[in-house]
Amino acid sequence: MRTSHYLLSTLKETPSDAEIVSHQLMLRAGMVRRLASGLYTWLPTGLRVLRKVEAIVREEMNRAGAVETLMPLVQPGDLWHETERWDQFGPELLRIKDRHHREFVLGPTHEEVITELARKEIASYKQLPLNLYQVQTKFRDEVRPRFGVMRAREFLMKDAYSFHINQDCMDKTYQTMFDAYCRIFERMDLEFRPVLADSGSIGGSLSHEFHVLAQSGEDLIAYADGGDYAANIERAEAPLPTHTRANAAADMHKVATPNAKTIDELVSQFDVAIEHTIKTLIVKASDDADAEFVALLVRGDHELNEVKAEKHPLVAAPLEFATDEQIKTVTGAYPGSLGPVALEIPVIADHWVAVMSDFAAGANEDGQHLFGINWERDLPLPETMDLRNILEGEQSPDGNGTIAMARGIEVGHIFQLGTKYSEAMNATVLDENGKAQTLTMGCYGVGVSRIVAAAIEQNHDDRGIIWPQAIAPFSVVIIPMNMHKSERVQQAANDLYDSLTAAGVEVLFDDRKERPGVMFNDMELIGIPHTVVIGDRSLEKGVVEYKNRQDGNKVEMSLDEVIAKFIG
Amino acid sequence: MRTSHYLLSTLKETPSDAEIVSHQLMLRAGMVRRLASGLYTWLPTGLRVLRKVEAIVREEMNRAGAVETLMPLVQPGDLWHETERWDQFGPELLRIKDRHHREFVLGPTHEEVITELARKEIASYKQLPLNLYQVQTKFRDEVRPRFGVMRAREFLMKDAYSFHINQDCMDKTYQTMFDAYCRIFERMDLEFRPVLADSGSIGGSLSHEFHVLAQSGEDLIAYADGGDYAANIERAEAPLPTHTRANAAADMHKVATPNAKTIDELVSQFDVAIEHTIKTLIVKASDDADAEFVALLVRGDHELNEVKAEKHPLVAAPLEFATDEQIKTVTGAYPGSLGPVALEIPVIADHWVAVMSDFAAGANEDGQHLFGINWERDLPLPETMDLRNILEGEQSPDGNGTIAMARGIEVGHIFQLGTKYSEAMNATVLDENGKAQTLTMGCYGVGVSRIVAAAIEQNHDDRGIIWPQAIAPFSVVIIPMNMHKSERVQQAANDLYDSLTAAGVEVLFDDRKERPGVMFNDMELIGIPHTVVIGDRSLEKGVVEYKNRQDGNKVEMSLDEVIAKFIG
Repeated sequence: MRTSHYLLSTLKETPSDAEIVSHQLMLRAGMVRRLASGLYTWLPTGLRVLRKVEAIVREEMNRAGAVETLMPLVQPGDLWHETERWDQFGPELLRIKDRHHREFVLGPTHEEVITELARKEIASYKQLPLNLYQVQTKFRDEVRPRFGVMRAREFLMKDAYSFHINQDCMDKTYQTMFDAYCRIFERMDLEFRPVLADSGSIGGSLSHEFHVLAQSGEDLIAYADGGDYAANIERAEAPLPTHTRANAAADMHKVATPNAKTIDELVSQFDVAIEHTIKTLIVKASDDADAEFVALLVRGDHELNEVKAEKHPLVAAPLEFATDEQIKTVTGAYPGSLGPVALEIPVIADHWVAVMSDFAAGANEDGQHLFGINWERDLPLPETMDLRNILEGEQSPDGNGTIAMARGIEVGHIFQLGTKYSEAMNATVLDENGKAQTLTMGCYGVGVSRIVAAAIEQNHDDRGIIWPQAIAPFSVVIIPMNMHKSERVQQAANDLYDSLTAAGVEVLFDDRKERPGVMFNDMELIGIPHTVVIGDRSLEKGVVEYKNRQDGNKVEMSLDEVIAKFIG
Repeated sequence: MRTSHYLLSTLKETPSDAEIVSHQLMLRAGMVRRLASGLYTWLPTGLRVLRKVEAIVREEMNRAGAVETLMPLVQPGDLWHETERWDQFGPELLRIKDRHHREFVLGPTHEEVITELARKEIASYKQLPLNLYQVQTKFRDEVRPRFGVMRAREFLMKDAYSFHINQDCMDKTYQTMFDAYCRIFERMDLEFRPVLADSGSIGGSLSHEFHVLAQSGEDLIAYADGGDYAANIERAEAPLPTHTRANAAADMHKVATPNAKTIDELVSQFDVAIEHTIKTLIVKASDDADAEFVALLVRGDHELNEVKAEKHPLVAAPLEFATDEQIKTVTGAYPGSLGPVALEIPVIADHWVAVMSDFAAGANEDGQHLFGINWERDLPLPETMDLRNILEGEQSPDGNGTIAMARGIEVGHIFQLGTKYSEAMNATVLDENGKAQTLTMGCYGVGVSRIVAAAIEQNHDDRGIIWPQAIAPFSVVIIPMNMHKSERVQQAANDLYDSLTAAGVEVLFDDRKERPGVMFNDMELIGIPHTVVIGDRSLEKGVVEYKNRQDGNKVEMSLDEVIAKFIG
């Protein structure tokens, strides 16, 4: 490809609306352009990377025995009513009407459509297992699309759905997919980690996420230093308390705490250890609860895990915090003075709260706290559960190693769905005895367009992107110095371009009439792995300059050596 | 691919709702399934063909110097307001609102989006010409989607848009695209024809359609027998009259014609030649007209060409016929008794009407006709234009050969858009003198998913599809006879499958426990070009049976000969 016939579209300035590095670099390197909020046009350079990611994903899916299909983006509303997700899904599900006023959605995912296909096309256990996938455009109407293609509204995804006669068969395919996902990210040369995950709104039991590790990752991963365990912090079980509750030593007494609205203020102003304080959080109750609100208690130095909390049947999912005014009405106080004593709504406490004694909490009276509170003496012991995030340094849930933390970008997610969709949509097959069995299902997603951004978050420096070879938009760039003044440079550059291109090497030939500095900067920004600089003076010596984007090393080589390097 | 790991989904019965052969065969061969009206899921076999078509299109676009991009399907309404197509486009343009109540459309085409990109990214004539394309999902909310993927609502299209500093440059790229399109259809081994076309709602001047020739084609193509001319009937200019108007010989007189509602009835009941009759058609007038309706006149034996008619400034576009009641109000009579005499609305006549004399037409009085009508004596000569379809046997508009007719399926369309979009959206570049110039644009579409159906319309027999090699889902199918009873057959089939697959040949291995007849029928239905049947008895003789789907010929070959045939 010659830049003169290409749309390079690099930018010198960092666009002010791009918050994270990948978004900035994708705009600056001319990979994408914003059309509207969360909608991006992929320019040629970006699309080349996207297609390479897509190709690797496709190859590994095929190798793993999955079969490709293509489902519509526009899906009939009926199917979503059948699974009740029409009502359960938030406004991320864009509901539309066609010219005949019939209900449709822009598909954010395809469980309904594939289950509709399966119940019609799979009749017998003999057709199982079957793993169908597609690489397709998805739409999620995010309330606040951000970070460029990392969290766009329209995006490219590979989604696969497997069908099984029983759990045993499901387990085998799940492992096959787990391995395929590892190969996908290994082939892209990305530092990644599969982690145990919560299955969220998709449903099901076992689930793993695949994270590209990067400082900017939105997800926190708890992994075992010295062990195999790794889980999304949302999912990682905190250890049970290692001690039992001590006997009460203090009397409960009320103290004016006008300047202590937070736990930090409380422990800095009063003689109380943070391990002896409680945070009280008021959240909306689920429809199953008798009350309108529920109080959640975690120790002052612990953090509420919202995903764990919303699994409790009394808690509304997704978790929703009460407003200050609602809290005042329910507890008698504004946030900052809340506590469990004499609270008239259901209370759920973290396991570690139940073993506390002589502790402090708000008095449900503005500017007042109670100290020396004790369970069973001053108030009943509430129901307990794992409600908090695991902490760095705690023991790994599987007993091997201690927990460390890393940040990750979720680029893949695999689920055992069980019969959630097949039951709702009555997708059955005949087993060996001619008896109808509900299909067991798995599903497996890869965020194809997100991988492009995640790869950049992990692979860049202050000059631009550093593409892993497997997903680079071009393998080699040829930069001729003052080509328009030197016939010899022109000749050598053209010959090299022709030789490499003929051998299938993907070469970008920068034939613009630009100063060498401009070309160098653009190509480092775009992050092409190998640069060959052809100049008149070095040609005189019979050499050109080769530069590696990864390590920045420069070497002089003859043109023959360059050709041998790439064609081998 | 082994059928045991595949979703074959063939059907024995022809689905009753499929009207045309390609739709029937695509359902029966397990290529697609209907999800909802005009929405199809591509099953593995169909998708394999679709991807081959897509790959050929992409290769030829790249070879022609076009550069690939990918634009969103969901497009902001603002851009459509800018070009005024928000209002001009019919309900095929699905207008939607996102969660924030902002207007969007599901893109049926991408002129607005690409012009938005061009006005931001193309600054200088030095970047031109530039030809950007994408292979992308489109949505058109057809009022009556039909014929399967032939006229679906969601479909796959390649659309390209080129940008130029002047017409000369536009002409060159247009020719390059014309040639690329010819190569695309040649590579697919389809019988096709490029024809002059009307540019319709997309706008612009020069335009060609590419048609796959097939009996079932919706379009009629007028081409010159003994010449190069070919045009969509919509676009083919009818010749000018070869004679002048004869003098009036008869008196105008009214005749009761109670049983003559049509031209055919008129000429069979009365002594008048069809060439001396006139059809009067009442259509809605455009906003530019003073009247609400306009009368169009064509000779009794000629057919109104609606596309030509709606180009007249007084005629509403798209053409809309008046209702019977409206006609009664305007003319005084119902259809069947209409004519130009004493009509009080604008009248536009075909050129061939203006040279008529002593002709018959309705009297604008129910059950009455006028005979012996003559222009300029009985009524003024109206404005004339080419209003009718060209006829078989007439001279070709370019003077070479006589017109013959063929039916075609439109699979490609190329346009010179001129400055229609660039002007509306103010897309300019600086020319060599630093002066802003409005971009000249071309656009080039290929109906990727429609090609699959069109190829079937052209290539099938009563047993099923006959794929051209280049777009066949698989190249070879191996059918083992009673494999589960013969270890020798099993071994030979597996070995052949492994050898061919390892060499990159796309092989389907029918390893189902089915009777040979079922397997043969399925594979002929699917239309795989080459079949290798492996049976115990022929293996004893050291041979297998090779069968060609195209000519039906069977040959015995050794396994080595089979391998040599496909690997070469």
